[in-house]
Amino acid sequence: MEQRVSLITLGVADLERARGFYAALGWAPTYDVQETLFFEAGGTVVVLWSREKLAADTGVADDGARWGGITLAHNVRSRAEVDEIVAAARSAGAEVTREPAETFYGGYAGIFRDPDGHAWEIAHNPGFALDEHGAVILPR
Amino acid sequence: MEQRVSLITLGVADLERARGFYAALGWAPTYDVQETLFFEAGGTVVVLWSREKLAADTGVADDGARWGGITLAHNVRSRAEVDEIVAAARSAGAEVTREPAETFYGGYAGIFRDPDGHAWEIAHNPGFALDEHGAVILPR
Repeated sequence: MEQRVSLITLGVADLERARGFYAALGWAPTYDVQETLFFEAGGTVVVLWSREKLAADTGVADDGARWGGITLAHNVRSRAEVDEIVAAARSAGAEVTREPAETFYGGYAGIFRDPDGHAWEIAHNPGFALDEHGAVILPR
Repeated sequence: MEQRVSLITLGVADLERARGFYAALGWAPTYDVQETLFFEAGGTVVVLWSREKLAADTGVADDGARWGGITLAHNVRSRAEVDEIVAAARSAGAEVTREPAETFYGGYAGIFRDPDGHAWEIAHNPGFALDEHGAVILPR
């Protein structure tokens, strides 16, 4: 199994609500088909799809949990960007679960949950450089 | 907010168990620090970290749910690869929630859950080409 993630599918209760939330953050679907939105996301693809269909497709029992042990992160180039994105998410209806603040790893981050509960950390981590496309360059 | 995912952190109950599971699938951490494993994963980074710490860091109440509405996908170049990877995951202790089979979108896929419940679809989708690095090329 090669080391890569092709798609990250976020199950949503209301596709149009989710589309609107991500649109407010500047995200536009690259491919929109059969009530499924695909967003190019820097080497991987974020997909918004009915949570009910996703649970059935995945073959899992869905107890409705809003957090199953996965948090996404979006690293940015400055503390100001952290503040701006968390503010934009709040304005778009996100719950902010951690106000932007200094982190244990010497960075600065805030965390919000989208309308379906999916958690995003918006982080400035001076220990992780970003390449010209914004991808993290891990230390060696 | 740019359209990209920097990190996907999978909370785990036992880091060494998770390390062993992913090692059995051929994944090697690129960066291993403070009980946190970072795997380069094609433009994004998969991170294995204590679920307890991740929940606290994310600011969420953790009810222990094994699925919170997110499924990851790993697209491959042939049906045979789907079979091989799902078999390897099963041998490494994964629960296979969908045996490899034809899908509604005209592909072929199987799904397993890692020891912490995180769901991976291994898919061959002839409608999505893969570039030279294995990244999905979305239709336009």
